[in-house]
Amino acid sequence: MRPDPGKWDYRRSELRSMSSTSEDIRRQLKVRRQKQRAILATRWRCAQGGLEFEQLDTFYGAIRPYLRVAQFFGIMPLANIRSRDPQDVKFKVRSIGLAVTGLFLLLGGLKTLVGANILFTAGLNAKNMVGLVFLIVGLVNWLNFVGFARSWSHIMLPWSSLDILMLFPPYKRCRRSLRSKVNFIALCVGILAVGDHMLYYVSGYCSYSTHILQCHTNHSRITFALYLEKEFSDIMFIMPCNTFTICYAFWINGAFTFLWNFLDFFIVMTSVGLAQRFQQFAARVGALEGRVKQSKLFLIKPISLLNLFSIQQVPEALWYDIRRDHIRLCELASLVEESMSCIVFVSCANNVYVICNQALAIFTKLRHPINYIYFWYSLLFLLARTSLVFMTASRIHDASLLPLRSLYLVPSNGWTQEVQRFAYQLTSEFVGLSGYRLFCLTRKSLFGMLATLVTYELMLLQMDAKNPKGLRCV
Amino acid sequence: MRPDPGKWDYRRSELRSMSSTSEDIRRQLKVRRQKQRAILATRWRCAQGGLEFEQLDTFYGAIRPYLRVAQFFGIMPLANIRSRDPQDVKFKVRSIGLAVTGLFLLLGGLKTLVGANILFTAGLNAKNMVGLVFLIVGLVNWLNFVGFARSWSHIMLPWSSLDILMLFPPYKRCRRSLRSKVNFIALCVGILAVGDHMLYYVSGYCSYSTHILQCHTNHSRITFALYLEKEFSDIMFIMPCNTFTICYAFWINGAFTFLWNFLDFFIVMTSVGLAQRFQQFAARVGALEGRVKQSKLFLIKPISLLNLFSIQQVPEALWYDIRRDHIRLCELASLVEESMSCIVFVSCANNVYVICNQALAIFTKLRHPINYIYFWYSLLFLLARTSLVFMTASRIHDASLLPLRSLYLVPSNGWTQEVQRFAYQLTSEFVGLSGYRLFCLTRKSLFGMLATLVTYELMLLQMDAKNPKGLRCV
Amino acid sequence: MRPDPGKWDYRRSELRSMSSTSEDIRRQLKVRRQKQRAILATRWRCAQGGLEFEQLDTFYGAIRPYLRVAQFFGIMPLANIRSRDPQDVKFKVRSIGLAVTGLFLLLGGLKTLVGANILFTAGLNAKNMVGLVFLIVGLVNWLNFVGFARSWSHIMLPWSSLDILMLFPPYKRCRRSLRSKVNFIALCVGILAVGDHMLYYVSGYCSYSTHILQCHTNHSRITFALYLEKEFSDIMFIMPCNTFTICYAFWINGAFTFLWNFLDFFIVMTSVGLAQRFQQFAARVGALEGRVKQSKLFLIKPISLLNLFSIQQVPEALWYDIRRDHIRLCELASLVEESMSCIVFVSCANNVYVICNQALAIFTKLRHPINYIYFWYSLLFLLARTSLVFMTASRIHDASLLPLRSLYLVPSNGWTQEVQRFAYQLTSEFVGLSGYRLFCLTRKSLFGMLATLVTYELMLLQMDAKNPKGLRCV
Amino acid sequence: MRPDPGKWDYRRSELRSMSSTSEDIRRQLKVRRQKQRAILATRWRCAQGGLEFEQLDTFYGAIRPYLRVAQFFGIMPLANIRSRDPQDVKFKVRSIGLAVTGLFLLLGGLKTLVGANILFTAGLNAKNMVGLVFLIVGLVNWLNFVGFARSWSHIMLPWSSLDILMLFPPYKRCRRSLRSKVNFIALCVGILAVGDHMLYYVSGYCSYSTHILQCHTNHSRITFALYLEKEFSDIMFIMPCNTFTICYAFWINGAFTFLWNFLDFFIVMTSVGLAQRFQQFAARVGALEGRVKQSKLFLIKPISLLNLFSIQQVPEALWYDIRRDHIRLCELASLVEESMSCIVFVSCANNVYVICNQALAIFTKLRHPINYIYFWYSLLFLLARTSLVFMTASRIHDASLLPLRSLYLVPSNGWTQEVQRFAYQLTSEFVGLSGYRLFCLTRKSLFGMLATLVTYELMLLQMDAKNPKGLRCV
Repeated sequence: MRPDPGKWDYRRSELRSMSSTSEDIRRQLKVRRQKQRAILATRWRCAQGGLEFEQLDTFYGAIRPYLRVAQFFGIMPLANIRSRDPQDVKFKVRSIGLAVTGLFLLLGGLKTLVGANILFTAGLNAKNMVGLVFLIVGLVNWLNFVGFARSWSHIMLPWSSLDILMLFPPYKRCRRSLRSKVNFIALCVGILAVGDHMLYYVSGYCSYSTHILQCHTNHSRITFALYLEKEFSDIMFIMPCNTFTICYAFWINGAFTFLWNFLDFFIVMTSVGLAQRFQQFAARVGALEGRVKQSKLFLIKPISLLNLFSIQQVPEALWYDIRRDHIRLCELASLVEESMSCIVFVSCANNVYVICNQALAIFTKLRHPINYIYFWYSLLFLLARTSLVFMTASRIHDASLLPLRSLYLVPSNGWTQEVQRFAYQLTSEFVGLSGYRLFCLTRKSLFGMLATLVTYELMLLQMDAKNPKGLRCV
Repeated sequence: MRPDPGKWDYRRSELRSMSSTSEDIRRQLKVRRQKQRAILATRWRCAQGGLEFEQLDTFYGAIRPYLRVAQFFGIMPLANIRSRDPQDVKFKVRSIGLAVTGLFLLLGGLKTLVGANILFTAGLNAKNMVGLVFLIVGLVNWLNFVGFARSWSHIMLPWSSLDILMLFPPYKRCRRSLRSKVNFIALCVGILAVGDHMLYYVSGYCSYSTHILQCHTNHSRITFALYLEKEFSDIMFIMPCNTFTICYAFWINGAFTFLWNFLDFFIVMTSVGLAQRFQQFAARVGALEGRVKQSKLFLIKPISLLNLFSIQQVPEALWYDIRRDHIRLCELASLVEESMSCIVFVSCANNVYVICNQALAIFTKLRHPINYIYFWYSLLFLLARTSLVFMTASRIHDASLLPLRSLYLVPSNGWTQEVQRFAYQLTSEFVGLSGYRLFCLTRKSLFGMLATLVTYELMLLQMDAKNPKGLRCV
Repeated sequence: MRPDPGKWDYRRSELRSMSSTSEDIRRQLKVRRQKQRAILATRWRCAQGGLEFEQLDTFYGAIRPYLRVAQFFGIMPLANIRSRDPQDVKFKVRSIGLAVTGLFLLLGGLKTLVGANILFTAGLNAKNMVGLVFLIVGLVNWLNFVGFARSWSHIMLPWSSLDILMLFPPYKRCRRSLRSKVNFIALCVGILAVGDHMLYYVSGYCSYSTHILQCHTNHSRITFALYLEKEFSDIMFIMPCNTFTICYAFWINGAFTFLWNFLDFFIVMTSVGLAQRFQQFAARVGALEGRVKQSKLFLIKPISLLNLFSIQQVPEALWYDIRRDHIRLCELASLVEESMSCIVFVSCANNVYVICNQALAIFTKLRHPINYIYFWYSLLFLLARTSLVFMTASRIHDASLLPLRSLYLVPSNGWTQEVQRFAYQLTSEFVGLSGYRLFCLTRKSLFGMLATLVTYELMLLQMDAKNPKGLRCV
Repeated sequence: MRPDPGKWDYRRSELRSMSSTSEDIRRQLKVRRQKQRAILATRWRCAQGGLEFEQLDTFYGAIRPYLRVAQFFGIMPLANIRSRDPQDVKFKVRSIGLAVTGLFLLLGGLKTLVGANILFTAGLNAKNMVGLVFLIVGLVNWLNFVGFARSWSHIMLPWSSLDILMLFPPYKRCRRSLRSKVNFIALCVGILAVGDHMLYYVSGYCSYSTHILQCHTNHSRITFALYLEKEFSDIMFIMPCNTFTICYAFWINGAFTFLWNFLDFFIVMTSVGLAQRFQQFAARVGALEGRVKQSKLFLIKPISLLNLFSIQQVPEALWYDIRRDHIRLCELASLVEESMSCIVFVSCANNVYVICNQALAIFTKLRHPINYIYFWYSLLFLLARTSLVFMTASRIHDASLLPLRSLYLVPSNGWTQEVQRFAYQLTSEFVGLSGYRLFCLTRKSLFGMLATLVTYELMLLQMDAKNPKGLRCV
């Protein structure tokens, strides 16, 4: 801008434009400040846990319906679970939830003791132990969930605060909401689990009727009531056989089955919730670089790739903010990992055990087509559920590594110390769920588990082959 | 240049030489610019996909002949596969290719159903299941290739653009072209596979004739036609036995075998293609350092090693270019890895399963020398093919790490941030093929697979030893 | 401070306050210097090993009672073990301790030879080998502890000096003292081990009496004395049967059992001792950042997170001090790891072997309820002890990685070279115990060991199933 | 130095002292230059390969005697192996060495064919296959050594040049020379191997005589000659039985056994040679820091640790030299690793196979005490040899990581880019031997191998238990 006196008009207009520009800037800054204030205010209102919080796509909001269902079976006994505000939900020793849990533990314990007594009388072996293990694991799981409920507020409050943080700009919401994902999985698992439970009874009844037909002359015994009497023999052991008892037997049986499925489902929900946040985080870092579009573009256009890296300069302070959020996410993930260790450990150990046991019957000749259908349905459902647990949990780790690629594209002059530290942070620690850190839920460990499972299976099949059993009438 | 008036002549000549020098420089710059323009123009023409593209040693050019052969068996149904330009080749729902695939799926599915029916009637066990698994895996593979064909243009266009980029300076072509490598492997695998397929029929016929000779009085039944009737009993089950049916049976059998071999061959081709590019990249980085010659030299000459590192200074911008190309290569590799996950997974799982099953017969007494020959030929061919898949795929990873050594030789004053980032990038991620990231195709995992295979084999041999079978006449 | 002449009063008071301030500073500096001198003096007195050292919560002080008990069984023969000063405790060839060890080696060796002779006469097999292996491993352990005692002063002096360093500020003491931790573990393991030893005799006597009742007519033989005569048949082989002999037999049997338990307990003690120091170190780094409180705070308060990182600036010299202490800790850890390699190796190998052997009897029908109780008690005690060894040892590694998280929170302007080097140091090496570096005592290897144990167990059960044995009378 | 005229005397003396100092410096520089020239000259003379080279403790000098012995068995056919200069030793197609190798291959091949013929006639099974595998592996090894001999000069010349470099200051010689180490190992392995070979014949003769005594009436057949006739039945198959034949049979048998032992011994020698150089390198880096003494000191003295890090400043150029030498060492190591891959692979695979096979007889009842002695001696010798291979090879890697600790002690102001790059280089690559990179020779892989070996063994024992064999007379 040379001060040329002969160009006054120009300068005047320039001045005017300058003043107008500065007003623009002022106005823009004002708008921005207003926006930020609005976001802060909304966040604050959300943090109060009112209706606005309810409308957010938080993790708490996504799992609340399922927690309320779980209450009916005494799982995760929390007080005020109906509240929309996670701050109200707490573990209380004197609460209805814990009383329900206690009832289930009592009734389940009773069932287990009776079953154990019958088994020890008949002689315990590796085969008939399965049922007993199922019951004991169930009781352990109820206790595990009580333990988790105790650390509930230590986990859910930070999680909710992080949710509030990440559901507003600069973070973008994911294409599919957390709620819809969780609901979809719940629907699938639920229907399959109900089908599995139904088939169990149907298959059992068919086996029973065939057994009577072949081994007894008194064919009048083939009624559903008599089947149930045999099926629930452990309950009938201590109670008279009437409609109430049968209902009660159905109910307690269902509770154990529900718990078993809920266990895996709960791990899946948590994994989805954590992975979603890591994906959002990666998306923010990616958006910063304008990466997504460009990489698509650069892989298709063959030649004009020269200005690939013309990315806008990212200020140091922004990188600092990003790194801070990453620390928060990792803190949350490790908090969840610690609290869920026992749940994950019991779930995986139990699943492996049951799969091994189920798979033993692969070459066994069964009586009915319905037996075959139940056997394969049940085995495949179990395998699918276990794989689902591992695959969704492994996504947390995968998502946590996503921002690494974006960092490669940071231009040389933007490669500051903050970015370096961020890159180092991304690779230095394992983020994800684990069973007491004895094993991590990753794809590699799923593969290792499957390979070991085949080994065990082959050995068990050998041991089994030595005690051949026909279709004997006992 | 001291301005000495007594040396005018000299100065004049100097001036002249200066002007001539500057003209030289101008001319050189012009030549260089012309060269660069020529390269850009050639690249552009290549990118149009004309004859010039055809003459380049691109991956598309190398695999096109085999894709066209595969079309005859309904594998990888792409439209316009005859075109020299990869941009024309697309997956279309309404195309002849997909129709052929559909036909194969229909006929193969029919064969599978009939075979399954026969098996279920006779009683399914671990032994006779092999044939059925072979058919089902075949069908799955056809579908997998359809899936891969759908993502064809998303992979092949970036790949071709990268090929164009890396087939001109500053990249040097490899000593052996991609085409010759692929053709050599195709020739070897092809001949061995045809031999395997032939031996299958010969060995089967010999077994059949010996069986008749030993167990039946009616020796007139030893004809090739009758053997085929037994061999293709599943097809004869639904069609009358005539020449057409036999031809059809041969054809559909061959299609399944071709698919099985093509699957592994396709992984090998892709691996060779990717590894070639990574090797070229490493060669470029190595050439930059003048490394290859010097390291040879330095290891032989004992003393005069002092000027080992007198390497020319590499400008920052060049390192930036190199790093950018590396990002592109890695993006391509991860794109391919993602798309081929299912193909790799099915291939490896199937190969392990078939090897386990084949190896069970190691200690079985066979009737004929030809049976022995077929058995060992087939087993070794399978092992060699599986090892080939792992070894070529592991080369991608090995080649991706090659530039690391060159970076050690960068002198201190040339060790800029760009080089540091490049070194970090090289080691921070796995580059290579994998089966859903459950396992990676590396040498270590090949070794682990072999060790596990021996474990399984020993256990299966034990299980097998319990059901001894002589050479019974059925 | 503008020199305004109209404000003399103010300036005077200012001056006074300045002088008073400088006096304050002088006084503070004096106090600080006095404190530092006091600490140094205390340290020095402690290093002399007087009463003051005794009162410190050192590792030597924590394990001394147990070492003195171990002396009675000839384990870890050190001279002057009663001294409070670790500098007095040395390995001497001519000492009472070594003489006791020699006596135990002689008597134990004799017992082993007699046992081996009996076994070889009766025919050695995989089953009855267990007892012999137990005795041989015992002898090896005595020798191992002699070896460890030889390197005692090379380990304990640096350890004690580090203890002195870390029991004064700036390090804070842990909430629970080392002594209380070690005593608690000793109490638990001790009671369980005594119970195990008692049950062994009770279970043996019950088996003996039942055996006599079933197979012999002469029921008068059911006395405890006769049982002992049979139990200690190897000792009775060379000595007459009288009260002294029986006492001697009890004593030598007890010594072997004590040694076996002490071996594991010693590894646990050492692990706890090392882990404690690493935890203190991590606490110091954490306290530097004011991390603990803030992270709690930040995870609960949802919004006001902005001044999360307003951490006081840490001077370079302090980081240097911290890094130096870390090097010392790592040097100590690797010194201990090297010296204990053989002890760890023998302990783990033996435990795995005994667990495999014990677990073989899972499906064996036993005679008495007391046999069942002993069998399960013993197996679970063994598993728990082995897991305890792995879990406490893995804590060293876990604790050594704790400061990493604190480093993430270091602000940008405090991220100096020293911090970077410290971060690099933390992740570059494995800190913990190992068995000749063939395997490390971590959680992952515990899991791997358990998986392998199940594999071995299944195979051994198969082999066992082939030689069925009833309750035969021999 | 203030120019004060009143202090002339002082200045004069100062000047004199200055001049004398400068003369001192000049003299010192001269002496240093002379020293350096002397070292360079010695190096040069050494590089010429004269007597002076012979006197150096080079790897070539250490292994030459054993290579010359190996020549008698046709192993590693090199021309001019008697020369003291490694440059003269080359692989020549037309040489006596290769002719001897050819002879061995011919005779060995003949023996193998005859043996295979006998086996195939009698029926090949997993048990009697061992002998045939031993012969075939022997032939493969001869060919492997021919392959290694071809790349001899590419390996030994750089190695010798590195030896020359590292046997003069600034490198210090190791306490124990390479020669003494190699000779010690050779002596141990040699004596044990000869003992093993002797026991083989003795044990075989005892078995033979017992067999005749029990199963034949004609006891006159118990002569050593008749035993040899049976032992060498494959050679007697094609040649008449006389003294020459028996000598020949002994000789060819011995050659195979020598080759088998030499294979492992050669890997051990190479490992020791490489590890020695890495240790020297680590010692140089350590000496630079004055580390060794100080760390001892600091761990014993409790308090006066403050000037721990008062290490002299190391100039950048020195770090550059060190890094350059490290690159050379790594280049050499990777060159050796590549060339020895096939030798390592065959050695390990064969050892595992033979151990598995040997260990099968653990529970077999043998006839004679001498049979037991031979069996256990042979098994333990084999296990010890295999462990020796792994342990010495793992030392290369361990030694390559040693300088890392020294780098931690570099003071802050000396932590330059060169040091950083050196630290990065140390950890970024695996240095050591491997079998085609399928597995590396480390302690961890030895442990994995042992665990897998136990698994295989248990399974093979099961399979073996199914075909029980008494002491039958055949």
